[in-house]
Amino acid sequence: MGSTVILGIDPGLANTGWGVIKADHSKNRALAYGCLSTAAGSERCQRLNSIHQGLWDVIERFAPVELAVEAVYFGVNAKSALLTGEARGVALLAAAQGSMSVSEYSPTQVKQVVTGNGYAKKSQIQYMVKAFLQLDHLPQPDHAADALAVAICHAQMRRLN
Amino acid sequence: MGSTVILGIDPGLANTGWGVIKADHSKNRALAYGCLSTAAGSERCQRLNSIHQGLWDVIERFAPVELAVEAVYFGVNAKSALLTGEARGVALLAAAQGSMSVSEYSPTQVKQVVTGNGYAKKSQIQYMVKAFLQLDHLPQPDHAADALAVAICHAQMRRLN
Repeated sequence: MGSTVILGIDPGLANTGWGVIKADHSKNRALAYGCLSTAAGSERCQRLNSIHQGLWDVIERFAPVELAVEAVYFGVNAKSALLTGEARGVALLAAAQGSMSVSEYSPTQVKQVVTGNGYAKKSQIQYMVKAFLQLDHLPQPDHAADALAVAICHAQMRRLN
Repeated sequence: MGSTVILGIDPGLANTGWGVIKADHSKNRALAYGCLSTAAGSERCQRLNSIHQGLWDVIERFAPVELAVEAVYFGVNAKSALLTGEARGVALLAAAQGSMSVSEYSPTQVKQVVTGNGYAKKSQIQYMVKAFLQLDHLPQPDHAADALAVAICHAQMRRLN
């Protein structure tokens, strides 16, 4: 199996975390990661435009071929689901425009694959993301760490298939 | 008040209704309307891409300057909210990319403004949309009629302001 460049995304209207890793047959390397934040005061369509543009810049810069994203599950709050859906929509659109394949993983699946425990705490995930990618520091902010975690999850699943 | 071209949208992953009207100080005229449907079997990011592309074609063709869209409220189903959110996200993105202003109206507001009754039935709305726009037939399908209704609602609200 050759190497591939994977983009992980943790989409949200206020904060969209992203992480790009290069995965070969045995290891993962972080190319870059970050978080696109949008101001609560600005218009929603401008916020979505800024997320789309930011992700598109990442796609152009690193040319990832696969997108990994958390499948969202929601308890009760349909309002959050709608806003998260809008951010996910523009992220998935950017993936389609970049001819990327898309894989979704549940939060439990990501935790299980990255830490061996489907109920792992956030701090454990960050610790394992740091270890997997041999980073000097814990990845910050949270949203970027979550994006890297789903990218690592996808890389591991690819190796199994 | 000069005339303006308004795009109304009823966004959804399976069906996104759209309607373009030209509104001047006293009357509304339908320029075009339709519904973008996507196949349930195809990948979600491709469906979103097709909605975005379809709306962009409409924007390029009619150069609307204002977008009117229903503010969604949901009872319980967060899963629907998420999928609708994804479709809304790419619709709002297209509006931002086309430098359009965006106005949202609740379903009750649209019914109230278009029929005088916030609890009007779908058939009443279609009837009034036909009357407002002097169409020969009831607008079809439903999603296109809903899109025209929110566009008319916006045109009426503009006149009041």
